[in-house]
Formats: sequence, C-alpha cells, structure tokens
Amino acid sequence: MKQFISSRGINRRALLSTLALLPTVSAALAPVPALAQAAEPGGVLASWQDGAARQAIVDFVRATTDRASANYVPPEERIATFDQDGTLWVEHPIYTQVIYCLDRVPAVVAKKPELKDVEPFKTVLSGDREAIAGLSLHDLETILVATLTGMTTEEFKAEATRWLETARHPRWKRLYTELTYQPMLEVLRYLRDNGYKTYIVTGGGQDFVRVYAEKIYGIPPEQVVGTAGGTKYGYGEDGKPILTKEPKLLLNDDNAGKVEGIHLMIGRRPTAAFGNSTGDRQMLEWTGAGSGARLKMLVLHDDAAREYAYGPAMGLPETKVGVFPQTLLDEAKKSGWAVISMKNDWKRVFAFD
Amino acid sequence: MKQFISSRGINRRALLSTLALLPTVSAALAPVPALAQAAEPGGVLASWQDGAARQAIVDFVRATTDRASANYVPPEERIATFDQDGTLWVEHPIYTQVIYCLDRVPAVVAKKPELKDVEPFKTVLSGDREAIAGLSLHDLETILVATLTGMTTEEFKAEATRWLETARHPRWKRLYTELTYQPMLEVLRYLRDNGYKTYIVTGGGQDFVRVYAEKIYGIPPEQVVGTAGGTKYGYGEDGKPILTKEPKLLLNDDNAGKVEGIHLMIGRRPTAAFGNSTGDRQMLEWTGAGSGARLKMLVLHDDAAREYAYGPAMGLPETKVGVFPQTLLDEAKKSGWAVISMKNDWKRVFAFD
Repeated sequence: MKQFISSRGINRRALLSTLALLPTVSAALAPVPALAQAAEPGGVLASWQDGAARQAIVDFVRATTDRASANYVPPEERIATFDQDGTLWVEHPIYTQVIYCLDRVPAVVAKKPELKDVEPFKTVLSGDREAIAGLSLHDLETILVATLTGMTTEEFKAEATRWLETARHPRWKRLYTELTYQPMLEVLRYLRDNGYKTYIVTGGGQDFVRVYAEKIYGIPPEQVVGTAGGTKYGYGEDGKPILTKEPKLLLNDDNAGKVEGIHLMIGRRPTAAFGNSTGDRQMLEWTGAGSGARLKMLVLHDDAAREYAYGPAMGLPETKVGVFPQTLLDEAKKSGWAVISMKNDWKRVFAFD
Repeated sequence: MKQFISSRGINRRALLSTLALLPTVSAALAPVPALAQAAEPGGVLASWQDGAARQAIVDFVRATTDRASANYVPPEERIATFDQDGTLWVEHPIYTQVIYCLDRVPAVVAKKPELKDVEPFKTVLSGDREAIAGLSLHDLETILVATLTGMTTEEFKAEATRWLETARHPRWKRLYTELTYQPMLEVLRYLRDNGYKTYIVTGGGQDFVRVYAEKIYGIPPEQVVGTAGGTKYGYGEDGKPILTKEPKLLLNDDNAGKVEGIHLMIGRRPTAAFGNSTGDRQMLEWTGAGSGARLKMLVLHDDAAREYAYGPAMGLPETKVGVFPQTLLDEAKKSGWAVISMKNDWKRVFAFD
C-alpha cells in the first residue's frame, strides 16, 4: 500500500471514502499452527485455482528447498516479505489504521478538551462524512500524530487491541482482522512449512500491525517491518521504566523505504516478495536483483463482486487507494513478476466465503 | 559497551591504547547446531564453575520452560538479549570496530588522495601510536564516517569480511572472531536449546556485527540490533539496485537507545538480558520490569591473568573501555542483577584456553 504517515505527506486518496462501523458477531480465525508440516502440493494452497500464479509459487518452493536443485537456498536465507494493505488484507475503502486514528479522536479530545473546537478535530467529531473526506493531508497528519504518539507503547497496544476487537468493516460488517485473504494466509503457511521466515513489510505503522500480526498471520512482532516512529525511554510515576511514542519519523517504510527497512530490520535480501502497488516496486526489484530463483508477485484487485476492482483492472491509471497503475503492470510483465488475479486465481477470497 | 559512533560523540577512552595486528594461524569455531537438543544440566554450561551465576541461569531456564511453573514463558516470548563488546567478546584494549576503521584509512585515502595530508587521516597514516591515541572525538567521528559510509552495503560487507579474516588481536595474536567468551557461547546455545531467540543488542555498528554474528555466535543478521545509519536506495552503473550507506544516524543503540532499539527491532520485552557496562543499564532495567522470572546478568572483568581486570574489580570508578563503575555494581545488588565473575565463575575464558 501507499503509506499515509510520513515526512513526505499523506495519501489524500485514502480519505476520499467514508466509513461506517457497525457491530456484528464475528468468528475468530483459526490460529496458524506453529509446527511445520510436510508440504503436500495437493493439499496446500487449497483456495488457489490451478493456474500460472499457483504454479509459480509451487515451482519456486520446490526449486529453493530441493537440495539437488541448482537454485537451492539454505534455510537461514529463506526470507519472504509481504506488503500488508491490499496484499494480505482489504485496504478499501480506506486503510484500517486511518479509521483507527479517526475513531481515536474522541478519546484524545476527552483528555484535551481544548481541542474540541480546533480543526481538524472539530470536523472529525462532527461525524460529517463529506467534511471528513475533505480534510487536507496536513489535517490528517495532525490526527495521526495526536492519536499515534504521546502515549506509552503499552497504552497504545492496549488501545489498539480494544479497537480491533469491536470495530467493523462497513461492507462486510466484520472485524477488520477477519478481512485477510485466505489464499495469502495459505501462502504464508506454505512458505513457513518449507522453512521460510515470513515478514510483513508495510507502509502502515509498525506498532499498529504488530498488535494483531501474530494472531491473524502467524507473524511475530519481530518480523513486522513498518513505518516507525521514535520512542523515548523514561520512568513512570511509579518509577517503572516506560517507552513513550514520539512524533518523530524513524523509518518511512514505503517505496524505496521498504528496501531500506528490510536492510535495517532483516539485513538479508528476500528470496520472495509480494505486493500490490507502486509502493512495493522497489521491494520487488531488490528481491529480483538477487541471484538464483526469486519469487516476485503482485496482487491485482480485479474482483468487484467478492472484493474490489481498482487499478488497471478498471482501466484506470490509479485509484483511491492501492496505487497500481498500468505502468506497474507493464513493469511486472517486463521484469517477470507474476500477477495474481483475485478473480481468476482465487477460489475464495476470505475464510468466511 | 559504550558505543563510539553517535550524535553524542565518541568514547575517547577507546582510543587510549594502541594496536598491533600480527598474522597467525587460527582455528574456526565449531558451528552452533541449528536444531534444539534436550537440556542436560550436567552437560550444558560446561565451562562454568558451579556457583551462584551458573545456578541463576539454570534456575531461570527451568522456571520459564517448565509448563508446570508459575513463571512459564511461552516459546514465542522467549527473548534473550546480549550486549556484545565486553559481554560476548573482548573489548580491550580498544573496540574491534574502531580498529577496523583505523585500518581502513589507507584504502579510503587511496581512493581520495587529497585526504593524505588532511587531519585526522594524516595522523592515522603516520602509524604513530601515541599520536593516534591522542586524536579527538571529532577526529574519530570523521574517521568512522569516512570508513563506514559512502559504499554500498555489499561492498561494506565484503571489506569487513576480508579484514576479519586476517586482522589479529595484539595480545593473543588471534583473529578477533576467536576472542569470544566460551562460557557465553554456551549460554547462547543453552538458551536456544530451550526455545529462546537470542539477540545481540550492541552499541557497535549493526552492519559490522552482522558480518560475523551468524558464524561465531549462531545469531542471524535479523537478530542483531546495533547502532544503525541510514541507507539510500538507488541504481548502480549496470542499472541494478543498490543500497548505499549514508552518514545519517538512525539508531544510537546504547544506554536508553538499547531499549528503543529493542522496541524498534524486536517489539517484545526480553525475558533475559546480559551486559557489562553502564550502556547496558536501561536494557537490564527494562527487562527486569516485566512480570514473572527475569534474568539480568552483568559480566565483571576481574581476571587480569586470562583476560583483563577493569571497572570495580580494579577499585576504579571507570576505566578506558567497558564502563562499569562501582555504582553499577551497587545497582546490580540492589536490583537483583546477577554478577558473573570471569575469574571465579568461568573455568575457561576462550575456546582455545
């Protein structure tokens, strides 16, 4: 996805849609098993249609895990990186973390009542969806800083956890954590079962994604690389050490920043990388520039019935979110990146389908 | 250790000693086995004397891995962090990475001959040990920037690898990578065999330590947290993507920065932490502030015969390197941090002893 909090500004397209959060009942996703199991090509990737995309994944895993293969990769070098928004879960109509930030505004204002009549907080509190959608990039940055920094890391985790347990996606009326793509969960598991260490490399906030990544993706906090702000070590009123989230950008984990983040946090070149937008281009390039077999895949959102259709699937140069212009599709063809068609390659999109 | 490249300046004490790099033959350390094996308290930690320090380690592992224990820690939360210099390998008479930087000066000047007569390069090239030891913090910073940045990440790795294969410690005439503490290698292995993920959290350069950490400690690059500079994504002359090391500090991984680095790179509070100096104080505090059993240990350099004696072992407030004042020892007693006496707790210091 295109990250939305950075020194370079915010993706305004992310704000063009509205949100409606209605409570319904949801089922928790089955936990990903911790132990590896033998890869069974007939049984794995069960939600994938037979086709070029599925075959590319299976061929890559065979080529890199068979000791007799010229492209064998030792286990410690088996690194697979995944963009999150639009690649592992739904990013429409608006990035989940942005909704979180907007939802947090009342709590922030409750603590600082003087913000009640100050923009952009006033507009967010009004609930006027048109007006909220019209907020400027600078306004959104102000909201992100107010809702993502200033608290301790433990407080942030508790707040985000509570929100994720109740907030619902406007279309499916389900928890956001249920809106992960079942076929991609199967890829994560298949790669791990074959000795791959799976990482999220997201333009979204590292601390936010870490709150749920282990539970819904089976990816532990230390394997989440994201846009990260600084923290400050200090002591609470009880004398106990605390870390406070600061409004200082350390890593802008999007575009070229994804490669820089991979170097900082992983220190190895991935052998496989998955994305869905121009923000993932450099990560795929960097992955592909290594020697031997490399898997580079792009998720194409061409399924308006089961999810959304946007980007080149709609014949558009780019759309509200999930920037994926025709030029990226052209580059994929040129560079040998495999394209995953949600419509044609996936038997189902969600676990609840 | 006290890190030496930072916005806060350089530890001048690190420069007070001289270096002599003489070639001798060395034996490679045996690789750490990748698979966990059953913990055998009689066979593990073989280089440790029976005593309070060894017992603290064994008791901690039992308490956190026995499902029946009130202090049981699930495997995914078993995180152990280790300072490097003075905790895992020798930091006297001068930090290894500083020696590397001084040794790289001729190559830097060969590429930029105009530096030949410019300070501090001129002094380093002179080989005058007294003069080198007298360089200012600012001079050293200039040398670190010139020798650690400006090249691609791949070039840096190749240069550092070559150096580590030949440079020798002046006292033992052995490769620096042989000067790891055998008892600490056993702790690393013992913890891993019991499901712990072992991390280095060092004030030293993250990229430098990653060059050899997997080989000598069994710690992969992604589990090395260190002082880190920014990188810049771009394209080489052949059009291939490259990452260039930039003279921009991202993470000053010392003192409070160690906790901030742990949050950034790991995202979980460690259950065990090992250090040897004031630069490790906050990491031990942060580790100890978690609930349940926590292991916090300090290596005391009190063995002038087999290694070095400095800090409170010498009755000094602090010494050249390895800042470990009496106040830290007092704090250890107060906070229940276990002190490891090299002299009394270790049967041998090095694998070659």
